[in-house]
Amino acid sequence: MEFDTIAAISTPMGEGAIAIVRLSGDDAIAIADKMFRGVGGKRLKVVASHTIHYGQMIDPKTNEIAEEVMVSVMKAPKTFTKEDVVEINCHGGIASVNRVLQLLLSNGARLAEPGEFTKRAFLNGRIDLSQAEAVMDLIRAKTDRAMNVALGQMEGRLSKLINKLRQEILGTLAHVEVNIDYPEYDDVEEMTHQLLLEKGTYVKEEIEKLLRTSHQGKILREGLSTVIVGRPNVGKSSLLNSLVQENKAIVTDIPGTTRDVIEEYVNVRGVPLRLLDTAGIRETEDIVERIGVERSRQVLKEADLILLVLNYSDALTEEDVNLFKAVEGMDVIVIVNKTDLPQQIDMDRVQELSQKHKLVSTSLLEDKGVDELEEAIASLFFEGSIEARDMTYVSNSRHIALLNQAFNAMEDALMAVEMGTPIDIVQIDYTRTWELLGEIIGDSVHESLIDQLFSQFCLGK
Amino acid sequence: MEFDTIAAISTPMGEGAIAIVRLSGDDAIAIADKMFRGVGGKRLKVVASHTIHYGQMIDPKTNEIAEEVMVSVMKAPKTFTKEDVVEINCHGGIASVNRVLQLLLSNGARLAEPGEFTKRAFLNGRIDLSQAEAVMDLIRAKTDRAMNVALGQMEGRLSKLINKLRQEILGTLAHVEVNIDYPEYDDVEEMTHQLLLEKGTYVKEEIEKLLRTSHQGKILREGLSTVIVGRPNVGKSSLLNSLVQENKAIVTDIPGTTRDVIEEYVNVRGVPLRLLDTAGIRETEDIVERIGVERSRQVLKEADLILLVLNYSDALTEEDVNLFKAVEGMDVIVIVNKTDLPQQIDMDRVQELSQKHKLVSTSLLEDKGVDELEEAIASLFFEGSIEARDMTYVSNSRHIALLNQAFNAMEDALMAVEMGTPIDIVQIDYTRTWELLGEIIGDSVHESLIDQLFSQFCLGK
Repeated sequence: MEFDTIAAISTPMGEGAIAIVRLSGDDAIAIADKMFRGVGGKRLKVVASHTIHYGQMIDPKTNEIAEEVMVSVMKAPKTFTKEDVVEINCHGGIASVNRVLQLLLSNGARLAEPGEFTKRAFLNGRIDLSQAEAVMDLIRAKTDRAMNVALGQMEGRLSKLINKLRQEILGTLAHVEVNIDYPEYDDVEEMTHQLLLEKGTYVKEEIEKLLRTSHQGKILREGLSTVIVGRPNVGKSSLLNSLVQENKAIVTDIPGTTRDVIEEYVNVRGVPLRLLDTAGIRETEDIVERIGVERSRQVLKEADLILLVLNYSDALTEEDVNLFKAVEGMDVIVIVNKTDLPQQIDMDRVQELSQKHKLVSTSLLEDKGVDELEEAIASLFFEGSIEARDMTYVSNSRHIALLNQAFNAMEDALMAVEMGTPIDIVQIDYTRTWELLGEIIGDSVHESLIDQLFSQFCLGK
Repeated sequence: MEFDTIAAISTPMGEGAIAIVRLSGDDAIAIADKMFRGVGGKRLKVVASHTIHYGQMIDPKTNEIAEEVMVSVMKAPKTFTKEDVVEINCHGGIASVNRVLQLLLSNGARLAEPGEFTKRAFLNGRIDLSQAEAVMDLIRAKTDRAMNVALGQMEGRLSKLINKLRQEILGTLAHVEVNIDYPEYDDVEEMTHQLLLEKGTYVKEEIEKLLRTSHQGKILREGLSTVIVGRPNVGKSSLLNSLVQENKAIVTDIPGTTRDVIEEYVNVRGVPLRLLDTAGIRETEDIVERIGVERSRQVLKEADLILLVLNYSDALTEEDVNLFKAVEGMDVIVIVNKTDLPQQIDMDRVQELSQKHKLVSTSLLEDKGVDELEEAIASLFFEGSIEARDMTYVSNSRHIALLNQAFNAMEDALMAVEMGTPIDIVQIDYTRTWELLGEIIGDSVHESLIDQLFSQFCLGK
């Protein structure tokens, strides 16, 4: 395919040592060459692919030096986009990188749309859609485990599985076709039904297996929305600080929005905890009191995990009991804090209220019990089953929705087979499953979907 | 020189398409090679310098794939540090780039200190101290003009001038030495005095010229601290928004601090305005009222520029007059806003109060007068004299201090010459000037100063 030449800043904006402006397209090298002044008059047009060149970026109109740069020239097809790619490394810093970009834009390049580089890699056939989506997941990954999921998907692990299942369906359909066209035996119909049942069950079970990974996959990809609740002064702030200090806290600006929307993640044994309303906790030490019971219930509903904190050195109150009621049916870990002080709490009653919830005793002041708490958080969602390395996780909502539809279509087909529905009707459901699986890897998807998918990417990718 | 091998993340932290981890030192290539798995088993040890290689980063201990990377290999001495340099481009994103860095650190590299790459470039003799300092200025540059100053300094424009002056002093001292050692004529003393006077005056005047650029240089480098004052409802917020909207506002996290300290810059015709207390203005529309007269006076004192806003459609009040008093003796631009409404203000009185201050009428509502205001701001500090391209600006406080000391030493020397002080005493002052100028480019500076200078750099540079 042929496209115009696009350019964008590919490193995060901010002050850093190096920034990269990336170009891709037929004219990438020519455009960069126009404003490059290399040592000894070297021209980028004639250099070998995958080489690096030191020089100055000049404004061809005024001949003024704009920046000191290192230019990487990579010729098609062995590049990220399968097109000619030029990467200009300049000094990090906002004025510097903007100047380089502006020069490129005024000399023939067009500003890339978000995700357009990866979109080209997809459109030019280097990667399929699920791999392209993994590129963005990789960038957004909050922990090592989340990164492994994305990396596996980017390497095509999910694509391979999907392709295998599609092949299975296609093979079955072909086989059925042959049986119908050449009915050499009397029991053709029975054989055909048997085959459809066997293969269909296999496909359904494989889809089911994938779907079973989706809950964990989604948590790894998007983080576990976590809310800390408890009466004032039970140690919610200490708990938050303890989690943030022991583990790396990652602060992320949500792309495309202003700096006032910031999410904070804490990495607990590879599980990214997205702490909700942490600012609130820090400021007022009391989320429930501050936002009122009505709103707090709503926040609780959105949470994947509730950390309910009690005070070991204080008797249970009506408020504590109400909190237990508010979080009924949710994933909760009950934390009895301040074990360094004399016991006042009725632990039997706590046990009773906690029901099946995990119960952990801590003294955050003395840094006791934090390990057990982290273990409890990790094992609540990944009990004995984290083998991120070899496992294929489904983590993307779009994929999960398609797999669910494919599962249902396959189930319908199998039911129809068992009920002795005519083959040509059954075939429709098999074909539908094949199509749905195809959408995951970008086979037969609408252009609007593609545009929409890539628009969620960050600029320069 | 030989150093151990250092590694650091060289792109700003955050979500971006690409991140770079940089290695420098004797083992840079060997360390990267240990964990690189290239296409077809390619080894980084044997590749040519300045080439790029696609492959996977693996953990040598487990053989697990850690990331998909592009590795640039650059061999000494034609590199940023004059050492072997390897740049590993990986997917942007916090988990991804941290994993690559961790792998390097656990395989023989040491985490670089802030500025250590540039420090090595200096210690290995590729650049002098003023050039090294310009690297950081370039990264922090807020506007194109500021960038040009830094770029000029990085290219060695200041270094060349300083070297020329030092050469002049050294030549003079040598000449004097010769005159003394070979007194072939009777009037040796007179000739020597004449020479010292001539050359010394030249050096003094050149230093003076440089110092004259320092005010503008500092403004370009650090931004013009600007405060908007005025009674409630005169349009301070509108003024702020108008400046921010018409020009690019640059928000910068101050390095090394947390996210709550943020500076906002507005680029007005190449002059970076650092708007003080803008958050305050946005929230309450009234800085003076909010922070109290005492504190507001203090804020005013720290400002380089005051924008004093009056209401055209309202009579002058006691408060307005007090504001004029508060800003006496400072650089002030008086803005009479709301000219779209009927006049109520006594313009003669405003003229009288404004004295020599520049006076601009605006209707921010109708977007009138903003151009004049910007012109007034730019010309207040750069009246007719911005020729950033060819001029050598001194912008760094350390350089300014040294130039001032050198100027004083030279003045002392000249006075001594005129008073007929013995040559050997005069020589001391000349040598002192020579040494002070040397400190600017890093000749004969203490190691502790070097450490302190580079510690202000950002990580990975």
